[in-house]
Amino acid sequence: MPTPVILDCDPGHDDVFAIWLAAGDPEIDLRAVTTVGGNGRLYHTTYNARVVISLAGIKGVPIAPGADSPMVRLLKPAEWIHGDNALGGPELPKPTVEADPRTAIELIRDTLDASDEPVTIVATGPLTNVAMFARTCPDRLPMIKEVVWMGGSTGRGNVTPYAEFNAWTDPEAVAIVLGTGVPFTMVGLNVTHQVLATREVIARIGAVGNRTAAFGVELLNFFNSTYETDQGMPDGPLHDPVAVALVARPGLVTTVRTRVDVELHGTETAGATCVDLLGKLNRPPNANVATGVDVPAFWRLVEDAIRTLD
Amino acid sequence: MPTPVILDCDPGHDDVFAIWLAAGDPEIDLRAVTTVGGNGRLYHTTYNARVVISLAGIKGVPIAPGADSPMVRLLKPAEWIHGDNALGGPELPKPTVEADPRTAIELIRDTLDASDEPVTIVATGPLTNVAMFARTCPDRLPMIKEVVWMGGSTGRGNVTPYAEFNAWTDPEAVAIVLGTGVPFTMVGLNVTHQVLATREVIARIGAVGNRTAAFGVELLNFFNSTYETDQGMPDGPLHDPVAVALVARPGLVTTVRTRVDVELHGTETAGATCVDLLGKLNRPPNANVATGVDVPAFWRLVEDAIRTLD
Amino acid sequence: MPTPVILDCDPGHDDVFAIWLAAGDPEIDLRAVTTVGGNGRLYHTTYNARVVISLAGIKGVPIAPGADSPMVRLLKPAEWIHGDNALGGPELPKPTVEADPRTAIELIRDTLDASDEPVTIVATGPLTNVAMFARTCPDRLPMIKEVVWMGGSTGRGNVTPYAEFNAWTDPEAVAIVLGTGVPFTMVGLNVTHQVLATREVIARIGAVGNRTAAFGVELLNFFNSTYETDQGMPDGPLHDPVAVALVARPGLVTTVRTRVDVELHGTETAGATCVDLLGKLNRPPNANVATGVDVPAFWRLVEDAIRTLD
Amino acid sequence: MPTPVILDCDPGHDDVFAIWLAAGDPEIDLRAVTTVGGNGRLYHTTYNARVVISLAGIKGVPIAPGADSPMVRLLKPAEWIHGDNALGGPELPKPTVEADPRTAIELIRDTLDASDEPVTIVATGPLTNVAMFARTCPDRLPMIKEVVWMGGSTGRGNVTPYAEFNAWTDPEAVAIVLGTGVPFTMVGLNVTHQVLATREVIARIGAVGNRTAAFGVELLNFFNSTYETDQGMPDGPLHDPVAVALVARPGLVTTVRTRVDVELHGTETAGATCVDLLGKLNRPPNANVATGVDVPAFWRLVEDAIRTLD
Ligand SMILES: [Ca+2]
Ligand SMILES: [Ca+2]
Ligand SMILES: [Ca+2]
Ligand SMILES: [Ca+2]
Repeated sequence: MPTPVILDCDPGHDDVFAIWLAAGDPEIDLRAVTTVGGNGRLYHTTYNARVVISLAGIKGVPIAPGADSPMVRLLKPAEWIHGDNALGGPELPKPTVEADPRTAIELIRDTLDASDEPVTIVATGPLTNVAMFARTCPDRLPMIKEVVWMGGSTGRGNVTPYAEFNAWTDPEAVAIVLGTGVPFTMVGLNVTHQVLATREVIARIGAVGNRTAAFGVELLNFFNSTYETDQGMPDGPLHDPVAVALVARPGLVTTVRTRVDVELHGTETAGATCVDLLGKLNRPPNANVATGVDVPAFWRLVEDAIRTLD
Repeated sequence: MPTPVILDCDPGHDDVFAIWLAAGDPEIDLRAVTTVGGNGRLYHTTYNARVVISLAGIKGVPIAPGADSPMVRLLKPAEWIHGDNALGGPELPKPTVEADPRTAIELIRDTLDASDEPVTIVATGPLTNVAMFARTCPDRLPMIKEVVWMGGSTGRGNVTPYAEFNAWTDPEAVAIVLGTGVPFTMVGLNVTHQVLATREVIARIGAVGNRTAAFGVELLNFFNSTYETDQGMPDGPLHDPVAVALVARPGLVTTVRTRVDVELHGTETAGATCVDLLGKLNRPPNANVATGVDVPAFWRLVEDAIRTLD
Repeated sequence: MPTPVILDCDPGHDDVFAIWLAAGDPEIDLRAVTTVGGNGRLYHTTYNARVVISLAGIKGVPIAPGADSPMVRLLKPAEWIHGDNALGGPELPKPTVEADPRTAIELIRDTLDASDEPVTIVATGPLTNVAMFARTCPDRLPMIKEVVWMGGSTGRGNVTPYAEFNAWTDPEAVAIVLGTGVPFTMVGLNVTHQVLATREVIARIGAVGNRTAAFGVELLNFFNSTYETDQGMPDGPLHDPVAVALVARPGLVTTVRTRVDVELHGTETAGATCVDLLGKLNRPPNANVATGVDVPAFWRLVEDAIRTLD
Repeated sequence: MPTPVILDCDPGHDDVFAIWLAAGDPEIDLRAVTTVGGNGRLYHTTYNARVVISLAGIKGVPIAPGADSPMVRLLKPAEWIHGDNALGGPELPKPTVEADPRTAIELIRDTLDASDEPVTIVATGPLTNVAMFARTCPDRLPMIKEVVWMGGSTGRGNVTPYAEFNAWTDPEAVAIVLGTGVPFTMVGLNVTHQVLATREVIARIGAVGNRTAAFGVELLNFFNSTYETDQGMPDGPLHDPVAVALVARPGLVTTVRTRVDVELHGTETAGATCVDLLGKLNRPPNANVATGVDVPAFWRLVEDAIRTLD
């Protein structure tokens, strides 16, 4: 039985692979895609989701736009990585799939209500939509099986020394979601920096040979070029699909049960996800935190999923 | 033409008078009441709204419950002022009016959508519902004529040295609402501490002679007793209806156009509403801030409104 | 027996009157003057102290320069009130008194060591020197009878909505001094804004007729002109000598025993002195805080002191 | 020509090796040792410095006690690593060397004044003394060639997720020292966690065969036992002598020129040293930060230095 999943994302190059993996993997039952401002403004991330879902021939997955803006702070889209439209590189074919008339919060609510079993939310952008949902529909929280979030880090960040982009964009949302008590798994940079889109990886994806693969190769080439400039990493880390992989194949990503607190008040460290791996703070654990990934198995999963698409 | 108003509140003794004033004053067209956790948990504040609307014979005003919890922080209900059920003092008669099946956010949205003209939101509790609405329905913000909020202070606070209860309960919500750019008026302690429920005031209200007045007298006596203990004020300040009075009678409350920033990060001052009356910060004005009130005119308004009720 | 006093100051117009009051009042035994960066850079405040001590014919009071810079933050001299040299208005006569070769910390230490009885430190600038002394010579703290500080406020500030200049300049120093446990009295804006240099006050001081008085009148006229522009107060409040008056005449300034915590971490409120007058925080009292002043008696004291000078 | 050095430390097991390396290495001219509260209260750290200097037969190096307490915060000695007396493990022989009558600040000042050339301060504890010196004797700052500090981290911390003990103990002191503009090198956990006191290392030190070596072995065995319990590291990292080695042998420790800002205001991250290795913040560089160490060369240096001692 595949795991029912709502994917909340801000495409974004790596979000695209998360969408494709969630749609193409047999162990995931992708029931909805919701979008959020993050890598780009909501207008772009919603449009991009429509583009890549149309292009891959994914059917029957409603797409609903959520929050354009973080809870409390201002949005600063990650143009330095993802370009002006959040999906720099390839020319974007006109999408054939429309956005759902519902808001992200309504679509999440309806998807939970329509399900016979609790649903996993995989979030690969700022947690704004999930936090908004938690505050708007607190009675529906028990229907969320788990929130699996690509974001944060157990070590260094990628926007400021200690903050990862998704966490830095909306730290208050992270605090809200952690505070709900819904089971929470964080897949941070400490793990996602292991899945690098090397030349070999790109070649293998290209060799799949369908139009999704071809488009993906263009995305990865752009992504690698901005990662080299901005982060000194010639092979960009494909963060977001790792969160999907964790749900698709238990064990592929290893985790520890520990304590995560997000910094809301620092002048230098806002959005730092403080993971108390040594248990020095004597606080109860509140999260599973990814600590490792089977890199070859991960890429096989991505490749296999793309093969199922158009 | 009376001003269309949605009243968002957390009854609470003084919220009750805000409801009655909004319902009974001829210059206010009260279209909805929404409730929020604040003086008490949402369960109590919603119940209390139903009780005092039923008791006063107010008809046709839907009541919808909103957020139980502030955006980011934990709720600490003001039991030290309002008692365990947020409406200590009188025995509460069973309400005859039911709550609306919609949530506060839905009721605000529908009320705005049904209106031919922009609607004023008077908020007399933590701004959580208004902030949630702003984030959930940003496209509806132009239909809000103004948010008039009882909260904050230009001087000292009443929970911590510099924070007033509503602001202290959900400072992030204040920041969100200020950030929307919707016209905003703050009616703070610096003004509401002028409208004291003295023995003379209570006698006049009692002399109205209907059951609403009698219930109101019981409320004020309880309120004064806790205010004396907690704040050293034997005559309690009837904060919330001042915000309604400002809408009902332009000029009754004087305001200045100035800058308000809410402290989100201090260890001693979270929730302080920093009002730059001297313009020392060189930031653009973002609010109207109440600076004075015609106290006799205010009490006449309250008295007259109660006279129209059951 | 007059009270032995070390005066730590940042002259500054009102500091000048504090020096003259401390030197001229029979109940104060002024043993040392130390200077600190605040209203102006240390260079100016030290020079100004020498000028006004020379001009007033004060003998035998060593003057030692202390810290130019706050503990952690950058100094922003109050040029908007005190002018470029911290003592705008009159032409400054060349000082005849030299600065002591010792640093402020050494002079404080030596003054304490030379005394048969504990010595009161009256501080009328940022508390940097006192904090530095506390950290450098912790063994000498028992020889300080009390620190009486002009600074802070129980209400609004004068640089930001909630911070007074001396507290805002070096909040960490306030925290350090409060943390020492040395008896501490705060004389804040809530009281000093009552002692206004009105036309009548200036006339009376002018009528003293000596050169100190004449210089003082020039200072007050300049001070009033900047206060009108910056604070909308045509009669400037003569803050600093109120702290001296409190020591000179017990009872002239009334105080309450209460709790003071200084905000170190707020983005809008750094330097706010949070005075828990209502005891809402349930923390042990750590300070005496001035709440009132006998204004006519204060001005008589100032006038009488100036009469004893050249 | 050996480099003249003042060693400011809080012994502490690893500080002891820093003292011995500084005293025994031919390229270091150790002119003074100053102590600070950190791993233990000042009483212990000063006593411990006297013990290990006496035991090793180090002559002519004055030892002066400095600050017991951080600038603004409370001291929490690292008993969980260093034991109750900051030097758990061996029985401490009575010291034969007395402490200097001067304070640390006076000894630093006199040492700088007596030198023909600028002097390097190697600090292996909280930076309180150095910060105090900077504020007390700003005119002497040009006589400091460089401050080389063991503290901070470019990655994770060891007390909280992002704060290293020395930085966490007195973050304000780090900010003060960084703010002086004196050349500053940070040797953080990212490098010191590479120099582990393995069984082989301990055996080699033991094989030196003198009483210093024997005492050192006892220290390392204790240190490793607490590191295993507290940090899950069976071989403890010998942090402090790495800072001495950097001065003794240019090139042994590699550094990058970059930007360091210390977090003063976070609730979860106070004391985090935020090292902008990617230059994302666009601020001017203000520090050299260690990024690598030649581990075998380091241990040879330590071994050789111990061999020169008693
Ligand atoms: Ca993403
Ligand atoms: Ca209320
Ligand atoms: Ca002053
Ligand atoms: Ca150390």
